[in-house]
Amino acid sequence: MIITLKKGSKKKETDLIIGKIKKLGYKPHISKGKDMTIIGMIGEYAEKYRDIFAAMEAVENISEIQKPYKLASREFQKNNTVIKVRRNVEIGGKQIHVMAGPCAIETKEILFKTAKIIKNAGATIIRGGAFKPRSSPYAFQGLGEKGLKYMEEAGEKLHMPTISEAMSAEQVELVSKYCDIIQIGARNIQNYDLLKEAGKQKKPVLIKRGMATTIKELLLSAEYILSQGNYNVMLCERGIRTFEDSTRFTLDLNAVPVLKKLSHLPVILDPSHGIGIREHVGTMAKACIAAGADALILEVHPKPEEAFSDGPQSLLPDQFEKLMKELDLVAKAVGRELL
Amino acid sequence: MIITLKKGSKKKETDLIIGKIKKLGYKPHISKGKDMTIIGMIGEYAEKYRDIFAAMEAVENISEIQKPYKLASREFQKNNTVIKVRRNVEIGGKQIHVMAGPCAIETKEILFKTAKIIKNAGATIIRGGAFKPRSSPYAFQGLGEKGLKYMEEAGEKLHMPTISEAMSAEQVELVSKYCDIIQIGARNIQNYDLLKEAGKQKKPVLIKRGMATTIKELLLSAEYILSQGNYNVMLCERGIRTFEDSTRFTLDLNAVPVLKKLSHLPVILDPSHGIGIREHVGTMAKACIAAGADALILEVHPKPEEAFSDGPQSLLPDQFEKLMKELDLVAKAVGRELL
Amino acid sequence: MIITLKKGSKKKETDLIIGKIKKLGYKPHISKGKDMTIIGMIGEYAEKYRDIFAAMEAVENISEIQKPYKLASREFQKNNTVIKVRRNVEIGGKQIHVMAGPCAIETKEILFKTAKIIKNAGATIIRGGAFKPRSSPYAFQGLGEKGLKYMEEAGEKLHMPTISEAMSAEQVELVSKYCDIIQIGARNIQNYDLLKEAGKQKKPVLIKRGMATTIKELLLSAEYILSQGNYNVMLCERGIRTFEDSTRFTLDLNAVPVLKKLSHLPVILDPSHGIGIREHVGTMAKACIAAGADALILEVHPKPEEAFSDGPQSLLPDQFEKLMKELDLVAKAVGRELL
Amino acid sequence: MIITLKKGSKKKETDLIIGKIKKLGYKPHISKGKDMTIIGMIGEYAEKYRDIFAAMEAVENISEIQKPYKLASREFQKNNTVIKVRRNVEIGGKQIHVMAGPCAIETKEILFKTAKIIKNAGATIIRGGAFKPRSSPYAFQGLGEKGLKYMEEAGEKLHMPTISEAMSAEQVELVSKYCDIIQIGARNIQNYDLLKEAGKQKKPVLIKRGMATTIKELLLSAEYILSQGNYNVMLCERGIRTFEDSTRFTLDLNAVPVLKKLSHLPVILDPSHGIGIREHVGTMAKACIAAGADALILEVHPKPEEAFSDGPQSLLPDQFEKLMKELDLVAKAVGRELL
Repeated sequence: MIITLKKGSKKKETDLIIGKIKKLGYKPHISKGKDMTIIGMIGEYAEKYRDIFAAMEAVENISEIQKPYKLASREFQKNNTVIKVRRNVEIGGKQIHVMAGPCAIETKEILFKTAKIIKNAGATIIRGGAFKPRSSPYAFQGLGEKGLKYMEEAGEKLHMPTISEAMSAEQVELVSKYCDIIQIGARNIQNYDLLKEAGKQKKPVLIKRGMATTIKELLLSAEYILSQGNYNVMLCERGIRTFEDSTRFTLDLNAVPVLKKLSHLPVILDPSHGIGIREHVGTMAKACIAAGADALILEVHPKPEEAFSDGPQSLLPDQFEKLMKELDLVAKAVGRELL
Repeated sequence: MIITLKKGSKKKETDLIIGKIKKLGYKPHISKGKDMTIIGMIGEYAEKYRDIFAAMEAVENISEIQKPYKLASREFQKNNTVIKVRRNVEIGGKQIHVMAGPCAIETKEILFKTAKIIKNAGATIIRGGAFKPRSSPYAFQGLGEKGLKYMEEAGEKLHMPTISEAMSAEQVELVSKYCDIIQIGARNIQNYDLLKEAGKQKKPVLIKRGMATTIKELLLSAEYILSQGNYNVMLCERGIRTFEDSTRFTLDLNAVPVLKKLSHLPVILDPSHGIGIREHVGTMAKACIAAGADALILEVHPKPEEAFSDGPQSLLPDQFEKLMKELDLVAKAVGRELL
Repeated sequence: MIITLKKGSKKKETDLIIGKIKKLGYKPHISKGKDMTIIGMIGEYAEKYRDIFAAMEAVENISEIQKPYKLASREFQKNNTVIKVRRNVEIGGKQIHVMAGPCAIETKEILFKTAKIIKNAGATIIRGGAFKPRSSPYAFQGLGEKGLKYMEEAGEKLHMPTISEAMSAEQVELVSKYCDIIQIGARNIQNYDLLKEAGKQKKPVLIKRGMATTIKELLLSAEYILSQGNYNVMLCERGIRTFEDSTRFTLDLNAVPVLKKLSHLPVILDPSHGIGIREHVGTMAKACIAAGADALILEVHPKPEEAFSDGPQSLLPDQFEKLMKELDLVAKAVGRELL
Repeated sequence: MIITLKKGSKKKETDLIIGKIKKLGYKPHISKGKDMTIIGMIGEYAEKYRDIFAAMEAVENISEIQKPYKLASREFQKNNTVIKVRRNVEIGGKQIHVMAGPCAIETKEILFKTAKIIKNAGATIIRGGAFKPRSSPYAFQGLGEKGLKYMEEAGEKLHMPTISEAMSAEQVELVSKYCDIIQIGARNIQNYDLLKEAGKQKKPVLIKRGMATTIKELLLSAEYILSQGNYNVMLCERGIRTFEDSTRFTLDLNAVPVLKKLSHLPVILDPSHGIGIREHVGTMAKACIAAGADALILEVHPKPEEAFSDGPQSLLPDQFEKLMKELDLVAKAVGRELL
């Protein structure tokens, strides 16, 4: 962290800052020129004390040069993390995986039907929500534990791992009991109790970037999980909120190479939420793979117009089947494989 | 909800939509012109089925005309809600209240010292965080229950009600036990378990708009609390995230008259977070009152450079004292009072 | 355009609206239900009168159902526009083109050197700025007409068409004289005099989306050019401004399929500006092609650290050469070709 | 400008940077620690060379410590600029001015009628657009020179100065001939030819912040005008584009104290565009004054439902009259005056 002092700041003020740095256990690095004084504060996690110095009148500017996250950073681990999910599914290697299924689990029949369709088309992980975060208290809120049981059954029957969302710290245990990957939704990106709880158990965790979360904050949220001992974390970009209103969100594909550079964790993309319009999901899925996605998460529903949520962005079975073949071509063009 | 069909849509498609509306228990209202077909779906909460219709191929456009929230709306209750907090403090009436104190409770001494300062200056509610949501897992996370006990003691000693944040459903009971107002932070605006829990107890709740939450979504989150039976909800604008980076957030004062028009609930403003720069907090506090705020929430710290969080935006005691007098002048200019 | 009236609006108010619609030469389409009155206003360009009705007290809501642009819309022309640039270059067909070169033309030597490099690598159009829009009045503003002459010479020598930016209506003639495609920059997306002037001459025009321009507004700006008689317009996405600050802009790839659906005009992508970080430009270029780009515009500079502008995002010659081969693989994977 | 090098960067790289700084005529200020090397580049306008250094592989981070604008900065001129418009109107002093009138000049009658109304209510400057930037090429584009003549006549008759917009460099002379203040609209904030032209003539210029313009960029655009010799520049905040869609724009009142701190130029607020909803314009106008506005620009129209543009946000005559009295109360509460 580099602290630049205001022009004409006094020795007393400089000394106060140096004293504070030492008191916090860091080493100050002073550089006094004719026109400006710069003080470096070196050491792990120095950035967490930023506010203390920013509050001082003599400080002109603070510039962070170290990353405020550590375990998530490429500096901590040079090689890509490859996460071993159950049933030989490995995320983060050459193989690109597709997690597919309905947004919400509505009935056992629809779930099983969809699971069979997506497996035949080449998907390797079943997705489905048992607990649904809905902005309106009057909308369908999910089947709860019953839905999780259906997920487990579907996974057993089709020999596929499953992913489902936990919306609170208490639900972590439940989702972890029935499913293979715990999803943390965009709305809970800074629900720190939930993040810590997910970090205390052993199942892999997929964390979705919030709609106004910066890349740095996403990595800090991942750090909450990692710092509890669970290193199997996947980062998921699913669209950010911008002024553009012709799509549901703005899928930030820039985030893929940036995350890959800053972190060793696998990067997952959710084009269904990222654009929110069924007929464009396939095109964006291709762009996701070209941008370097390690896996995709896609909504598929045999009857979208009867889906309780996200129908407008769910792919139809035949669209999905055709898309998987096209995605494989793009995967191969960038040195990966999908089918 | 008004459903406009695509040009040239067939009778079969129109019938499908009409059938669906009836099946969901609503009355369709069909208007067929030469160039377009419009179907109205009237009735409470029709908007929650939006996705079902949006997923249909024949649908061109859906326009919501009813509010998806009800209890929070001005249509449900014409008169302003006035919330009776303990010790004769009423929020939502002519009197504008100021909630002040440190961002985080660090020591009992600082809390008591600050509480005394703000009371002398005219503030009526003590604020202070015992549980702190921090983006970095390595930053100070708050004193927890010990901090809440200090809050209760400070309230008793100075005969002032208190406000503190609950970060999860489980913390609601704890905060409710020691404090008079439960704050739900911006990061938890869509933590629905927390919202419901806050709705099940009786203490007033202050809910902060998230950094990417629309006004409509803020009202829907309030609706989660209201729908559980707790009608004492305050809406708090604290800055949204935009491209502008010379301030911490962009305080959206437009939201004040818009919320006042749509809802009967009191509107609270947090200029400290909204601009994030100490020397400008006072100016923005005046603007908040002119815009119609029912209360302000302000960070005050006797030694901001020793604060563990938000030091850069905390007011100094003498700044706060002077500001309170200035705020009172603005309050009177808009027909309210503060001191 | 559908006008929904407020509940309980009176006959007098309804009649006023109907009268206004007729007076403006449109046909009203009234639908009066028990709970609401809806008035349709049908006909070309009805949307341009939106404000008049929105200003009326009795109006609850206005919903646009027709496109406010016409010539740019897919409804006006079903088939993709294929633009014939000079020297057998056609944009909008199966072949994906790459426009490459330095951000600004600095010296004749650098321009010629770069042009040769990009041609050898497979690019088909030379880009280079003679007039540079710079946010600081103290920064390098471009070589002006001298730069355009260098462009013409480079085009002649290498038998390649050229593209350069016109920053004002007066510069259109000049750029049109020396170059083959006129670029209108993001900052001038709503400089209507410039748009009209570009529409009055015959050279193809590439128009860049502004950093806060919606997709609808981009099409309306294109409509300004088209409505003057020049149908050779290319739409260029180059990144929008959002809260994310780890990249220069947020490249909105969602815009590609959305524009392709709404319009018949070719869509060009500028990943150099869209991410602004050299090492990630290549990855994003691949994503652009997967998303459906008809052409790319890329910054290449043999010595980026000596470039007067945009050095941080300019590709090095060997990076560019390698990238072109990779882009061709992605192009083929989506049924197009590049080399 | 402070350049931080990557960990482990070599002497050769450091020397390259130092050499470059010297070659550009600046003095390098090197500070080499065990863990990091920092190089300061001190001197006027150093920031304009940022890109050159950012393009170098060895550079980790660049932090600007000087302002890239100079004449607009508070460092250049300590005291507030007070602009003398014609007829004893001075903007930037204790007196707050109100510029009012229709968005577009439609007929001479409406303009004169409105001018009389606003003068009686206490406004001191007539506003009205003769050239209208409209996103659709099919919308009303303004009366042109005829409208400017009406403005001049209205100003003469009522002894009031006038303000009108110039949309291009050529229109500057025309607007300057007939009106007393030249307005540069939000869409032209980076139309540098227009800015320079406005800087070459002597009439005061009001420059509106663009919808995605940062505060720093607004000051740089002002610098374009100032650097041509015209020091009579007013900065106008009129709403930025954000994700919030219940208001037309998000009025960024934070910008007022920030601009006042960074610059000596008067700050004008446009609440009509900033919220875009008639019934809320008055409330926001009060907030603008409390935030420190030196003048307001307000849309008033005797028959908004017949206005060709911006009717939904135009105040009715009686609303305006009432508002002016209320604004005066707020002005006095913050030590200013209006009536």
